[in-house]
Amino acid sequence: MRVLEAVEGPADLKKLTDEQLTDLAAEIRDVLVETVSRTGGHLGPNLGMVEITLAMHRVFDSPRDRLLYDVGHQAYVHKLVTGRAPEFSTLRQEGGLSGYPNQAESEHDVIENSHASTALSYADGLAKAYRLRGEDRHVVALIGDGGLTGGMAWEALNNIAAAKDLKLVIIVNDNGRSYSDTVGGLATHLTSLRTNPRYEKVLDLIKKNMARTPYVGPPMYEVLHGVKKGLKDMLAPQGMFEDLGLKYIGPVAGHDRVAMEDALRKAKSFGGPVIVHAVTKKGFGYLAAEQDEEDNFHQIRPANKPRGWTDVFSDELVRIGHRRQDVVAITAAMLHPTGLHAFSKEFPDRTFDVGIAEQHAVTSAAGLAIGGLHPVVCLYATFMNRAFDQLLLDVALHKCGVTFVLDRAGVTGDDGPSHNGMWDMSILQTVPGLRLAAPRDGKRVEELLAEAVEMDGPTALRYAKGEVFPDIDAIDRVGAADVLKRSGNDVLLVGIGAMAATAMDVGQRLEQHGFGVTVVDPRWVKPVDPALVELAGKFKLLVTIEDNGRAGGCGSMIAQALRDAGVQTPVRDFGIPQQFLDHAKRAAVLQQIGLTGQELAREITELMTQQHGDALNESASGHQSQSNA
Amino acid sequence: MRVLEAVEGPADLKKLTDEQLTDLAAEIRDVLVETVSRTGGHLGPNLGMVEITLAMHRVFDSPRDRLLYDVGHQAYVHKLVTGRAPEFSTLRQEGGLSGYPNQAESEHDVIENSHASTALSYADGLAKAYRLRGEDRHVVALIGDGGLTGGMAWEALNNIAAAKDLKLVIIVNDNGRSYSDTVGGLATHLTSLRTNPRYEKVLDLIKKNMARTPYVGPPMYEVLHGVKKGLKDMLAPQGMFEDLGLKYIGPVAGHDRVAMEDALRKAKSFGGPVIVHAVTKKGFGYLAAEQDEEDNFHQIRPANKPRGWTDVFSDELVRIGHRRQDVVAITAAMLHPTGLHAFSKEFPDRTFDVGIAEQHAVTSAAGLAIGGLHPVVCLYATFMNRAFDQLLLDVALHKCGVTFVLDRAGVTGDDGPSHNGMWDMSILQTVPGLRLAAPRDGKRVEELLAEAVEMDGPTALRYAKGEVFPDIDAIDRVGAADVLKRSGNDVLLVGIGAMAATAMDVGQRLEQHGFGVTVVDPRWVKPVDPALVELAGKFKLLVTIEDNGRAGGCGSMIAQALRDAGVQTPVRDFGIPQQFLDHAKRAAVLQQIGLTGQELAREITELMTQQHGDALNESASGHQSQSNA
Repeated sequence: MRVLEAVEGPADLKKLTDEQLTDLAAEIRDVLVETVSRTGGHLGPNLGMVEITLAMHRVFDSPRDRLLYDVGHQAYVHKLVTGRAPEFSTLRQEGGLSGYPNQAESEHDVIENSHASTALSYADGLAKAYRLRGEDRHVVALIGDGGLTGGMAWEALNNIAAAKDLKLVIIVNDNGRSYSDTVGGLATHLTSLRTNPRYEKVLDLIKKNMARTPYVGPPMYEVLHGVKKGLKDMLAPQGMFEDLGLKYIGPVAGHDRVAMEDALRKAKSFGGPVIVHAVTKKGFGYLAAEQDEEDNFHQIRPANKPRGWTDVFSDELVRIGHRRQDVVAITAAMLHPTGLHAFSKEFPDRTFDVGIAEQHAVTSAAGLAIGGLHPVVCLYATFMNRAFDQLLLDVALHKCGVTFVLDRAGVTGDDGPSHNGMWDMSILQTVPGLRLAAPRDGKRVEELLAEAVEMDGPTALRYAKGEVFPDIDAIDRVGAADVLKRSGNDVLLVGIGAMAATAMDVGQRLEQHGFGVTVVDPRWVKPVDPALVELAGKFKLLVTIEDNGRAGGCGSMIAQALRDAGVQTPVRDFGIPQQFLDHAKRAAVLQQIGLTGQELAREITELMTQQHGDALNESASGHQSQSNA
Repeated sequence: MRVLEAVEGPADLKKLTDEQLTDLAAEIRDVLVETVSRTGGHLGPNLGMVEITLAMHRVFDSPRDRLLYDVGHQAYVHKLVTGRAPEFSTLRQEGGLSGYPNQAESEHDVIENSHASTALSYADGLAKAYRLRGEDRHVVALIGDGGLTGGMAWEALNNIAAAKDLKLVIIVNDNGRSYSDTVGGLATHLTSLRTNPRYEKVLDLIKKNMARTPYVGPPMYEVLHGVKKGLKDMLAPQGMFEDLGLKYIGPVAGHDRVAMEDALRKAKSFGGPVIVHAVTKKGFGYLAAEQDEEDNFHQIRPANKPRGWTDVFSDELVRIGHRRQDVVAITAAMLHPTGLHAFSKEFPDRTFDVGIAEQHAVTSAAGLAIGGLHPVVCLYATFMNRAFDQLLLDVALHKCGVTFVLDRAGVTGDDGPSHNGMWDMSILQTVPGLRLAAPRDGKRVEELLAEAVEMDGPTALRYAKGEVFPDIDAIDRVGAADVLKRSGNDVLLVGIGAMAATAMDVGQRLEQHGFGVTVVDPRWVKPVDPALVELAGKFKLLVTIEDNGRAGGCGSMIAQALRDAGVQTPVRDFGIPQQFLDHAKRAAVLQQIGLTGQELAREITELMTQQHGDALNESASGHQSQSNA
């Protein structure tokens, strides 16, 4: 680690010799493999970013010039060379380095949001601000070929192309597959640029060299460097970027640092917006990651993964697919992570991966539904926010039979604020006619998915990340809700989705304090079940527990339903406070925000004592329903 | 009206002679001008669509083939030729024809959503459904050049290009300006296609002819028809569409019906996705509309428009612009409708119209803010839904000082469900750190805008459509809230934004029934003011009135704040029921959903009588705050 230890900031990179830089690249790859294997995180994308990052920092002058990383999970190398190598072992740990750029960590970081396709819009705004303020600063935005499939990248390109004098360099990091195979016409076009014969020759050389040495080092570098002269002046047919009016440089071998520096210097001196098309290999320099067809090295997770919520869904959807020929599946570049791969293997013609394009995913689902099919749209809960308008007006206004399956809902933890699924239940509550379910365990994922695809109109399921919870059997049903426990009529605990298990824990603790409790899981949380409202009237206190933001969440809606029905039982609605949550393990986050059995039981006990004091064990007759229906 | 009267459906169009079709086009333009001048609505776009629509219906076979109109306000001609000519005089009137396609009106209508850039995604899904089901049906999507600037159109093109065998025809209706000048690289590219020398010649002919005759009729038709042969086989450089892998036919003279039919027949027979590039002139055939530089004929509104909410904002922003050099403005193809034109004339360098691209508007605003400026993003409230994720993660997570100004909030009425601004306050309530204001009158628009741009972090203002309400002066202030009326402590009426006037009306009516009321306008509705919560504790009933959906709305948030503070005053939260509202005048819609002074006063009286009966005039001591802070 001799070279890396001496790099305290980007300025140090500029003093290094070619040889030292080559050594540094090798050291960085060592650190990446060693650290990420231990902490988890994104390995493949960062192995592919080593030379590009070094070139960016040597040609530009951060933080005066601004380096923006789309998605952000490809910024590990950037972290290592901007003074954070000593703390890199704390990656993604509570209190440690974030897995994404973070303004609080470093003046070199800008974009904290991990959602794709945003960097070009930020860059457009930033560059326009500098122009207006008369500041001579460059803005450099790095975006993947996958990120370019997102509509807002197109919106940004369209605007950037019209601003001829912006000091803005766009680096397209084109590894030919973003999360998985990049989809669509753009990918084909990029491929046509890549398949320029001269460039093919370089790839052949890389390939031959790779067979000899699984690890990048000086020999590899020299091969690349040797062919550099043949590449550096080559301009491929510029195609659509030129049509838009954007200057295009490329393709450039993204693992050839010198070629990258040449291209970036040329771009920097141009004085207007330029696209530099860098071709890279995901996982470059780590053979296992490079040859990984299933993209397991995109994000490293512990081995021997226990059965997760996603797995349960994945299996059930295949069963439904066999039963119902009209069921089709859509995802936005998340075939594997959402568990759709099994369905896609069984029913390739009935599976649509639209690229990083949530808006299109949702509206094309509306089209599929109007055409007589029943689409199941599989997204992370956090990405549903990107297609709210399409869900509302294209699907719900048209009463389309589309089922949304929102994975990674609630507190996901490790990946920081923009990955938490804490908004979905609030925004979905506002969608007329949509029915929303929150399964509490694997059995309920199966049961509610099966119910959802049988319903007319839009439905949604949302469930947590990671290992699926043990099944909690119902002892009774009231309306559509499962009764999970019943020992009395003091407190009615409504546990929503993954928080049903917490509600059971709370219930047990309250019983130990002498309260009579009933625990229910509404299963369908929208619309609010009138039977649940009626039931609530029989208790001294209604408590709702959800791992969704409290603003407009399920608890809030249940409270509204009680008001509307004239039921005067006091309500206490627990959920995620409306704030951005720093990265940490899910359990640690839940602890911080008070969503644990212990803390909830303490608060409820306090509340009951305050409100009822001695009358605690008397009848609850004063709280019965006064429905004005 | 001889020809139009005989057209009961698309099949009848196929029997007409060329001469009859020419007469029909003239008759349709007469009907459009005559009707829309009276009912209001979109004149320019529909005058430009006459020949294209006739050609679509003659070449394709609706409803077997599906004709999709992006934005939908260009579907008047489609309505006239699909059996709705007799009812066309009821356009946009309550119970009459919608100003957009509507499935309930006709089997020929598909997309009811009026938001742009969605049609290609629908078309992709529909065509894939037909392919999968083995149905031999074509899908035809008409989209404007403005609609193509929206990111989801790009997402759709990218997917459609990859599906080589879809029976899908995309007609780009390119009039060179969508709402106003189309922005960006795409516009430049389309212009380059248009400026093919041979095509220029055609335009010249059109122009010369136009000078002679302000109204289209047989002579015009013959000129166009005469040059048709020179056009019909011409393929322009296909540029970016070809790069994406899409077959391109054009440019075609969009007012030459025969040329359009030829192009569409060719496209239909191709057997894969095809783009037909039709060049049209907005307002064609009605000289006043054609020559209208300010685009007043895009949508017809009553003459002598009284001063509106938008005008107040427009003037105030100019004043702020003079005071604060760092204030810049962004809009998404809505320069005039949002009142930004005045600011743009005064500060052209500080105004950015990004095209129909709300996502980019919001994230580039984040970039501008990071670059040291204070952007004011001007949108219709309904379009904020299209950039929720960007507002949440790009602006709010980064604590950017950006002010959102949401025009046409609440019930807008005439334009139907997708134009109502009834979601904004619910989704904005979930955004951490964002402060939201709802001005009740013009003076408050000025006051709150001035306060908003002085704040750190994200802020939003939302106000109603149309004539601004007379100012209601405050008699006192409690926290940040204005007290508008105070006659007692029975009912606390919280009137939000435009509903403050309604709250005053309700207050007066309740006073007549003997209740003591206080009316407040919180001005800032997020976060909920603790002073308001404390005040609520002194009343027997708290009533909130807002013209936003009830789910997660301001009333819901105030009720939550009361629960959190242990204030037990009963709450009744009035707002828009969570359902899509059919088009009608704003007043009529408010009447339907019970948001009138009379109806609210009736319900509140009933509630007070139920809850308090004889004790009505006693002290409210039993309801005082029991804060557990």
